[in-house]
Amino acid sequence: MRQFTQQVVVKAQGRRIYDITPQVLQWANQQGISTGLLTLYIQHTSASLMINENYDSDVLVDMQAFFNRLVPDGDHLFIHTTEGPDDMPAHVRTALTQTSLSIPIIEGKVALGQWQGVFLFEHRQEAMTRRVLMHVIGE
Amino acid sequence: MRQFTQQVVVKAQGRRIYDITPQVLQWANQQGISTGLLTLYIQHTSASLMINENYDSDVLVDMQAFFNRLVPDGDHLFIHTTEGPDDMPAHVRTALTQTSLSIPIIEGKVALGQWQGVFLFEHRQEAMTRRVLMHVIGE
Amino acid sequence: MRQFTQQVVVKAQGRRIYDITPQVLQWANQQGISTGLLTLYIQHTSASLMINENYDSDVLVDMQAFFNRLVPDGDHLFIHTTEGPDDMPAHVRTALTQTSLSIPIIEGKVALGQWQGVFLFEHRQEAMTRRVLMHVIGE
Repeated sequence: MRQFTQQVVVKAQGRRIYDITPQVLQWANQQGISTGLLTLYIQHTSASLMINENYDSDVLVDMQAFFNRLVPDGDHLFIHTTEGPDDMPAHVRTALTQTSLSIPIIEGKVALGQWQGVFLFEHRQEAMTRRVLMHVIGE
Repeated sequence: MRQFTQQVVVKAQGRRIYDITPQVLQWANQQGISTGLLTLYIQHTSASLMINENYDSDVLVDMQAFFNRLVPDGDHLFIHTTEGPDDMPAHVRTALTQTSLSIPIIEGKVALGQWQGVFLFEHRQEAMTRRVLMHVIGE
Repeated sequence: MRQFTQQVVVKAQGRRIYDITPQVLQWANQQGISTGLLTLYIQHTSASLMINENYDSDVLVDMQAFFNRLVPDGDHLFIHTTEGPDDMPAHVRTALTQTSLSIPIIEGKVALGQWQGVFLFEHRQEAMTRRVLMHVIGE
């Protein structure tokens, strides 16, 4: 059994959903693992991970619109506004989505479904450098 | 250390919460693993995974009612309506729930709590064939 | 490759967000694992796990306020009220957050980000004893 770790660094340019599928697959599919488990972990509390449709980019537009309505910036409910009106909404959006994801590796490939992509969901309005850790175990 | 993989195929007959606990446990508890980790992964973006109460089926009725209200079909917010009024709501519901789940195996058993079941949460109205991958590592 | 398991027991005194980071790190960082994977798993359906900001406790106050508004107690939508007006809301809040979390171990440390803490999110109003399983694999 072997393990490998690596990180994906994303220079996020504001609130948007960034497709990191190419970086994830390029690394994970080249570690010589036939059967195993890939875990992705984002080291932040105002950006998160999401697996969703990779085909029609309108899905990402609508996803963003939904979260903007469900957890609006500047909500008077919130007292934690240290970093601005998008500060606490970013933490809530993170809580409602994923900080870690695990995907089996089968027959030498990360077993994403046909229409699945891996996304970094940036919830802050300003530019941020984000780190996603990748861990593979298998053989 | 050993690994095993298998899949559960669910022929979903429309939007509903399907209990897959029996299929998961029947396979995972019979791989001869005393200590390890089970990961479940659904290869879709309009159906998801959920661990929740397995005792009173009213919980599933209410869960469905809540998501129907929170993410209603035919919401005019959405532009991605290619596959109908339940298309984008299915992607949002997937984002709000789980695509992967990991459960420790302890003393030869998947360590579900007493009242926990594993469910496939189908978000599309039409019949769909869904695949859930299972990966076990341990010894 | 080695594995270890342990549990954190939390005597929750009602609906609140409990920081379990110290218990998790104290155990996981002392298993002599240089590279590996930590998985946390909560064996309940009315309490969940969350990774979020560990610095300003106002974040936890606001998080609770948001979930109280999104999934209010005593909602007439729900028919499952066996254990009171907070019963079904607790199951919904669990579905919207996490039952399992996986975090890589790198250079001998659980790779939490600088501002990340691990929290038990108790959704029931009454006192409950909660169990979080920890599983480490690595070497």
